[in-house]
Amino acid sequence: MELISQHGCHGGVQRFYRHDSTAIGLPMRFSVYLPPQAQAGGKVPVLFYLAGLTCTEETFMIKAGAQRFAAEHGLMLVAPDTSPRGAGLPGEADAWDFGVGAGFYVDATEAPWQEYWRMESYVADELFGLVTTALPGDAGRVGIFGHSMGGHGALVLAQRHPQRFRSVSAFAPIAAPSRCPWGEKAFTGYLGTDRAAWAEYDASELMARQNGAPFPAGILVDQGLDDQFLQSQLHPEAFAAACQAVGQPLTLRRHSGYDHGYYFITSFIADHIRHHAAQL
Amino acid sequence: MELISQHGCHGGVQRFYRHDSTAIGLPMRFSVYLPPQAQAGGKVPVLFYLAGLTCTEETFMIKAGAQRFAAEHGLMLVAPDTSPRGAGLPGEADAWDFGVGAGFYVDATEAPWQEYWRMESYVADELFGLVTTALPGDAGRVGIFGHSMGGHGALVLAQRHPQRFRSVSAFAPIAAPSRCPWGEKAFTGYLGTDRAAWAEYDASELMARQNGAPFPAGILVDQGLDDQFLQSQLHPEAFAAACQAVGQPLTLRRHSGYDHGYYFITSFIADHIRHHAAQL
Repeated sequence: MELISQHGCHGGVQRFYRHDSTAIGLPMRFSVYLPPQAQAGGKVPVLFYLAGLTCTEETFMIKAGAQRFAAEHGLMLVAPDTSPRGAGLPGEADAWDFGVGAGFYVDATEAPWQEYWRMESYVADELFGLVTTALPGDAGRVGIFGHSMGGHGALVLAQRHPQRFRSVSAFAPIAAPSRCPWGEKAFTGYLGTDRAAWAEYDASELMARQNGAPFPAGILVDQGLDDQFLQSQLHPEAFAAACQAVGQPLTLRRHSGYDHGYYFITSFIADHIRHHAAQL
Repeated sequence: MELISQHGCHGGVQRFYRHDSTAIGLPMRFSVYLPPQAQAGGKVPVLFYLAGLTCTEETFMIKAGAQRFAAEHGLMLVAPDTSPRGAGLPGEADAWDFGVGAGFYVDATEAPWQEYWRMESYVADELFGLVTTALPGDAGRVGIFGHSMGGHGALVLAQRHPQRFRSVSAFAPIAAPSRCPWGEKAFTGYLGTDRAAWAEYDASELMARQNGAPFPAGILVDQGLDDQFLQSQLHPEAFAAACQAVGQPLTLRRHSGYDHGYYFITSFIADHIRHHAAQL
């Protein structure tokens, strides 16, 4: 782990790291916010943030204004990059919604992506391990949230790794990727054409198959009603229906006047940090 | 005035505008945050933010996290771009500390810059007029602050236009530009070699010439002690000495562990918004 830079922030420290990832087989970058409480030498709870299409490990840390509340509640924030970079696969950077910057937090099974595009293993295993061993994260108190593609990632990884992620929330998630253009494109490319494989990474389908509520303390989802992708790509109603069917408590808030960007996220970030702090 | 985009944010609205500037002679962009209180139809106090080298009208609005507190206190935020763009002057974009992105908030007198680089007139006259007539800003309650080059701009424009700007603060300002490399380069290029002309745009020299305190309610300046530019470029001690000499109340806070970037600014932005709200 190489420390690229660090910056004082709200009494704690904002750091950017680079490391040679085993899961990905390439160097990866991630960002960490260590709250003031981490300086005491003990472990602190951790909150992973997964970003959306085209973003990097920096986006959330510069735009969301989350550090103020992470410092208040003593949470470590962790944000990975959104895909491998530098693999050199043909066409990997030709589209903004597939390939570089668009890893969708799955372990790809289709060639040529399956060699490097292993974002689920990277986040849930490797990075989880790093921040709870090389950094003072408490492995027993880790939550996850995200935005858009990263909201999908958070809702999926939390359900696939409930022993690791004990709280979950999302901003404008791609809540039913099997039935929207972004998800269909990504899943076809990374997972192939068998829709049974897609269901393993579809938050709404995973929830519909749960036996009871996997997060009995509740899931929080915020959605702007002026979001330009709401009708075509996001389908929060599908996730809400699945939660209702299995008894999963869900707070789905719809906000008029808010769109898909970080001005929306920063408006409600305090509520999300509180949601996780209360459960961790 | 053309509205480029708008985004819901903390109950108010974040807007980006483009207009044909009379002062500059070119199209200019600026950003405005209208707090929820502006929806009632009355006038609201205004806080101008001047950004630093290489920044645009967007930087502050995406990175500082100021809207949360502007909404709380009912302040309109206004951020201009940092220079004319598209003039096509020879070498205008060759350096990051002069020309495009580096207007230094002066009215240039030297060729070829004097035709377009009129940032003082643009901010203090034209944009001041726009946001207090075409937008619901209260012309009698306007403050100004900024960062680095923009901190210099705020301390200078407030002193040169005290009838317009009634409160002032700064983050890591270039507080004595006549005696630092950034200022010497910019002032030579924009104002020529006569140092008497430089003194008209040097916050410390302007303050030293005041008869009494121009801002009796006090000026707030925050400075990080890990700021990589502190020793070579900023000289807050010169401004503090000038304030002391004329009896201008100054709160100069030095923060260990903080650098020159927006992680520093966002850590103390709430105090600055409160400082201005209390005086406006």
